[in-house]
Amino acid sequence: MTNPSDIVWHEQTVDRTAREANLGQRGAVIWFTGLSGCGKSTVANELDHQLNQFGRATVLLDGDNIRHGLCAPPGVLREEYSEEFANRFGLGFGAVDREENIRRIGSVAALMASAGLITLTAFVSPYRKDRDRVRKIIETSGAPGDFLEVFVDTPLAVCEARDPKGLYKKARAGEIKNFTGISDPYEAPPNPEVHLKGGDGATPTEQAAGVLAALVERGIIQPRA
Amino acid sequence: MTNPSDIVWHEQTVDRTAREANLGQRGAVIWFTGLSGCGKSTVANELDHQLNQFGRATVLLDGDNIRHGLCAPPGVLREEYSEEFANRFGLGFGAVDREENIRRIGSVAALMASAGLITLTAFVSPYRKDRDRVRKIIETSGAPGDFLEVFVDTPLAVCEARDPKGLYKKARAGEIKNFTGISDPYEAPPNPEVHLKGGDGATPTEQAAGVLAALVERGIIQPRA
Repeated sequence: MTNPSDIVWHEQTVDRTAREANLGQRGAVIWFTGLSGCGKSTVANELDHQLNQFGRATVLLDGDNIRHGLCAPPGVLREEYSEEFANRFGLGFGAVDREENIRRIGSVAALMASAGLITLTAFVSPYRKDRDRVRKIIETSGAPGDFLEVFVDTPLAVCEARDPKGLYKKARAGEIKNFTGISDPYEAPPNPEVHLKGGDGATPTEQAAGVLAALVERGIIQPRA
Repeated sequence: MTNPSDIVWHEQTVDRTAREANLGQRGAVIWFTGLSGCGKSTVANELDHQLNQFGRATVLLDGDNIRHGLCAPPGVLREEYSEEFANRFGLGFGAVDREENIRRIGSVAALMASAGLITLTAFVSPYRKDRDRVRKIIETSGAPGDFLEVFVDTPLAVCEARDPKGLYKKARAGEIKNFTGISDPYEAPPNPEVHLKGGDGATPTEQAAGVLAALVERGIIQPRA
């Protein structure tokens, strides 16, 4: 094995098209955004469930699986790494930390879409610029149309009345700083691919079905014959 | 939709077992490690190819797709982000940067394995401690047996004679600092799940077939009837 052509590969033999053909679907990123309590995790989870019932290959990135690993805060990293390491790479909730949090998630979503997975993400992601950067990452590594922004547009009053994690109460009491919708802005997407109105009686199942229809319409999945 | 049980999910409805059943395989991480030029990318690419020919769902993480995105160096991040941002989160090749590079890759590989993908990685990953941390990440988020370390054990002299990217030459000339095998140590895995001897005439196809056999033996894939 001394032929250099055996050693250096410039591209992967299995390209994205082959991975997609293998899975019988197109890779894509379905990016849910909206206020805390708007229902985005619930709808994403329901969509994930519906897609899997159709045999589609998916992944769901959310705070639970991201903030305990890839984007862990300094306090978690300190358990395994040095103080210097934890302070530099650990992510809190300040503006720069949120920027990097979304950048890492976007980069991972791009890799997953390239592997052919329908990749669902559910993060507040309040800043338009950060979401637009993710769109660019996804579309540059793939193609326009690979990124679907889903705006879960539930009125703040409804989100705050739900307050499933008690976060709004703490934010109003000043116990949480930089809380989106209270002390930090939420920049609504001007042109989301899917715009779901929340808090008007639609169930998560109905909302998820609306996104599913958009995936079929765009050829990301095809109804089986 | 005012029932709080509609809003807060503590776990994903589609669990790992369901994703794996959907794909007909077990998620796993196949972690190739070895010196630059040892052939790890070539073997990983060949294994990826063989698995896809069997219809298995895989992903291959390598320097090309990681260092341009998730673990981009400061110079790349500066194109989109502030100087402060790029310097803090961009990754070079110093010890701490390599540590974080491997931590991010390990975290992503864990997410991909949880999605049911057979996840192949090809990085020098010279430090035993960093690889052991990845093993811990993978096994904690999944189960023991989900992480297979594949040591591509090619003698330094063979790697240096190949020198596919001309890096050894530059390292010997002092143009590259901290080069594994020349000016930085490579800590060989004491107990890799698969130990491939390189440079002894085995072709990448044969080496990949050896790893494939280990995957069958461990029940990660099953030969079709």
